[in-house]
Amino acid sequence: MSTTTPAVTTAESEAMGRALDLAAQGVRGANPLVGAVVLSGDGALLGEGHHRGAGTPHAEPAALADVRRRGGDPRGATVVVTLEPCNHTGRTGPCSEALIDAGVARVVYAAADVNGPAAGGAQRLRGAGVDCVGGLDADRSRRLNARWAAALAGARPFVTLKSAQSLDGRVAAVDGTSQWITGPQARADGHRIRSLADAVLVGTGTLLADDPRLTPRGAPAATPTPGKGLRVVMGRTAVPEDAAIRGPGFLHLPTRDVREVLDELFGRGVRHLLVEGGPRVASAFLREGVVDELFSYVAPLILGDGAPAFPDLGVGTLEAAARWALDDAGGPGIQQLGPDVRMHLRPPSTGP
Amino acid sequence: MSTTTPAVTTAESEAMGRALDLAAQGVRGANPLVGAVVLSGDGALLGEGHHRGAGTPHAEPAALADVRRRGGDPRGATVVVTLEPCNHTGRTGPCSEALIDAGVARVVYAAADVNGPAAGGAQRLRGAGVDCVGGLDADRSRRLNARWAAALAGARPFVTLKSAQSLDGRVAAVDGTSQWITGPQARADGHRIRSLADAVLVGTGTLLADDPRLTPRGAPAATPTPGKGLRVVMGRTAVPEDAAIRGPGFLHLPTRDVREVLDELFGRGVRHLLVEGGPRVASAFLREGVVDELFSYVAPLILGDGAPAFPDLGVGTLEAAARWALDDAGGPGIQQLGPDVRMHLRPPSTGP
Repeated sequence: MSTTTPAVTTAESEAMGRALDLAAQGVRGANPLVGAVVLSGDGALLGEGHHRGAGTPHAEPAALADVRRRGGDPRGATVVVTLEPCNHTGRTGPCSEALIDAGVARVVYAAADVNGPAAGGAQRLRGAGVDCVGGLDADRSRRLNARWAAALAGARPFVTLKSAQSLDGRVAAVDGTSQWITGPQARADGHRIRSLADAVLVGTGTLLADDPRLTPRGAPAATPTPGKGLRVVMGRTAVPEDAAIRGPGFLHLPTRDVREVLDELFGRGVRHLLVEGGPRVASAFLREGVVDELFSYVAPLILGDGAPAFPDLGVGTLEAAARWALDDAGGPGIQQLGPDVRMHLRPPSTGP
Repeated sequence: MSTTTPAVTTAESEAMGRALDLAAQGVRGANPLVGAVVLSGDGALLGEGHHRGAGTPHAEPAALADVRRRGGDPRGATVVVTLEPCNHTGRTGPCSEALIDAGVARVVYAAADVNGPAAGGAQRLRGAGVDCVGGLDADRSRRLNARWAAALAGARPFVTLKSAQSLDGRVAAVDGTSQWITGPQARADGHRIRSLADAVLVGTGTLLADDPRLTPRGAPAATPTPGKGLRVVMGRTAVPEDAAIRGPGFLHLPTRDVREVLDELFGRGVRHLLVEGGPRVASAFLREGVVDELFSYVAPLILGDGAPAFPDLGVGTLEAAARWALDDAGGPGIQQLGPDVRMHLRPPSTGP
């Protein structure tokens, strides 16, 4: 694949490196990681910003706000951004319009927007007289959001898998006891991650064993808005009438088919799904190759036996095993949480 | 158990806190963790030091050297140290003598030395006219070295267990492939830990599977000095005539009995044993309760099946599982090594 080298200045090229680093500080999920840097006409830094997750400002308005916070003026400035500015009104307004309204003279972006409804930002900018160059460091930007793009291309939600286990990869002791393997700090972090997703899912096995509500801590089950606030159980076993999960946003999908679940949830507007287990459900999503990020909470205890975290994966030889990578997006790749350790991992062949 | 509160100044009390923090930066193994702070007569800091592992200076001479490096004079000073100064010539000379020679006026120590041949330092110091007070923060010092003291009391080596596994606690894939689960950085760190121990041990299973030499990387098998440089295989299976481990320092102990192995090695002068597996040997040492520290190298790959890191531990229920703790002694409790994670753990109910 050959790409034309765009005509950019050294300052713009360096700013793109910074914008990509900023992007990587964002939270993975329904939206891609995007960073932006605003430069004056002579290449001085006026402001910078990045997207911090669904429902928060996109990188460009965040960077423009930073310019104003620093007392600067974005008129006539160059905005260097890791993704083509969006052209649609989602949870926030279109960035192309925000840039035009701010009076910027030039936009340098990395990758083109592959999100159908959001694409077309560059065209709109050019139409409004803004000089617009794309393709700088496009590969790195694409690698950063490879899994987000794959989810979008597959018309399925971005999937985060959360797992809590002993040091030796067990989610329960031989007698089935599993609460609590990890301590309160790790559990609180798990609730925080829950609050970021559009929908949270467990299998019927976990439902019957733990009777979870799947709401973020302390929060009552809220009336879901389209694609948000769903609490989902998958599996053919019936959900008890008195299960804690029942209430607004509860959904039972009586299937073991991961693709069916993803189709159904995407159709309902879910763009970010958090899968909380149990082990059979975790392995089913892994086997299907649709896990886009993994939070693994490891409690430093040794069980030696008991239910494995990822049963029946069918990896027969070491060479065939997927090598995940520590992911610093949204926080450190490894982190101590009280007595426990959190690892944040991205799938093979995706970039930081 | 009641302890008399020793008569110490506020400066000495604060210095003991610092000395304990310094001690905790040391490397666990054949010797206890010890830290020392040197104060002038008016309580000003003159120097500090800690023991960095077998074969390196004890905390007191390290602190005295620091005083001289800073251009100070230890004569008339007070030395605050976390363990009673030793009174014997081991790999280094007796600390009691070094303190007397340096002309210090007063020594404040935490715990009494429980190591028979080394004990008696306080008595010797007093005999030389040095004011000597023991017992300050003794509990914290004892907790820091609880496992070292337990090993010594049991007349056995201090045991370090090293384990390398997948995220889900497997040491090999279903087909037995296990080289290499972790990357070069983790393996280099493992070699460094190997170089710290008096003896390195594997079971016959690992010997036959991997044919290791058990020497630190690049180093040829050296002629062992008493209690040092031993490369040990335990198990009843015969060691092949052409095994790489053969050579100076090679020892085959044809038993599966952990206590027998520890007795034999202690009798040969081994004070720090590194156990490198395999899984059955690791579990045998864990079951016996003699693992004093654990280095767990975790490669972020998911196997789903294959040989577990700690088989047959016999932990039936979550409550019964030993909760290890991240240990910052000698380096961070969690650490990224290339693509992998190293966890350094200490057994339950020992203190930082």
